[in-house]
Amino acid sequence: MLQIYTGNGKGKTTASLGLATRALGHNKKVCLIQFMKKDYGYGEIDFFQNIKNIDIFQFGTPEFVNKNNPAEIDLDEAEKAIKKAKEVLQTKKYDVVILDEINVALNFELIPLKHVMELLDLRQDTEVILTGRYADPELIKKADLVTEMKEIKHYFKNGMEARKGIEF
Amino acid sequence: MLQIYTGNGKGKTTASLGLATRALGHNKKVCLIQFMKKDYGYGEIDFFQNIKNIDIFQFGTPEFVNKNNPAEIDLDEAEKAIKKAKEVLQTKKYDVVILDEINVALNFELIPLKHVMELLDLRQDTEVILTGRYADPELIKKADLVTEMKEIKHYFKNGMEARKGIEF
Repeated sequence: MLQIYTGNGKGKTTASLGLATRALGHNKKVCLIQFMKKDYGYGEIDFFQNIKNIDIFQFGTPEFVNKNNPAEIDLDEAEKAIKKAKEVLQTKKYDVVILDEINVALNFELIPLKHVMELLDLRQDTEVILTGRYADPELIKKADLVTEMKEIKHYFKNGMEARKGIEF
Repeated sequence: MLQIYTGNGKGKTTASLGLATRALGHNKKVCLIQFMKKDYGYGEIDFFQNIKNIDIFQFGTPEFVNKNNPAEIDLDEAEKAIKKAKEVLQTKKYDVVILDEINVALNFELIPLKHVMELLDLRQDTEVILTGRYADPELIKKADLVTEMKEIKHYFKNGMEARKGIEF
């Protein structure tokens, strides 16, 4: 099955991480590939580092990507992430593959839709989870499950900043 | 802060579990209290059983609750869950307290809103996460962050049943 978590609300990446814990609890193998995220002290990465049956690959830089003018390295890293995802799906080693923030990478035009569609054609029985705002309508059409995380209220609007252990 | 994950889409409980991994990765202490959920082989519970810094308390029975005519034990268990949550908040031992499916317990009238409001008044600096469909408007008013998980597409609609490692 292909699942998508999109929308402007908090809970997309975390829903995929929660799914990872559920799958791991049933001794399934999970691969988490992150687009546009590297280092930066994400609590979830530190946490899963020490857990067996989950492999994590991060691509991108710790810097924000400029949507209107992405750097060469941003494009390179996103293509590397796609390549890794293809490799991972081809090995059939994992039951669940999470492509975190791939929707944003696509929306920022770091990767062409065509490459993502080709990638998804390699799924077979693997459960694939796509996260990030701005999910492409073509992906929504292809997906078996789509949840829109809709922001009803957010403390960022009141000037609160991202907090360690909660937002990262 | 008080966070609510509600709505009819997949990803509410899993978002709270993902938040737990993030908090644990930063050495925070997490308490997961589940309403209307007991045993039943939830992968996430098996997973977190072996993890330090997270304590889990389940209340309810493995059976579905009849909304129009809940059993005595359903009411008892929900009140026990509230009592445990109060205890847990009073000890100040945890940085994050997740009250999973509390919204549903409230909507099913297993517990009165008044008891939940009293409970939330004990929060102080603890991050409290409420999950489940049908979040009460009073709770939404009180919350700092609310995400509605909106179902755009779901494979259950095509006759797919809940799958081990994905739905539980």
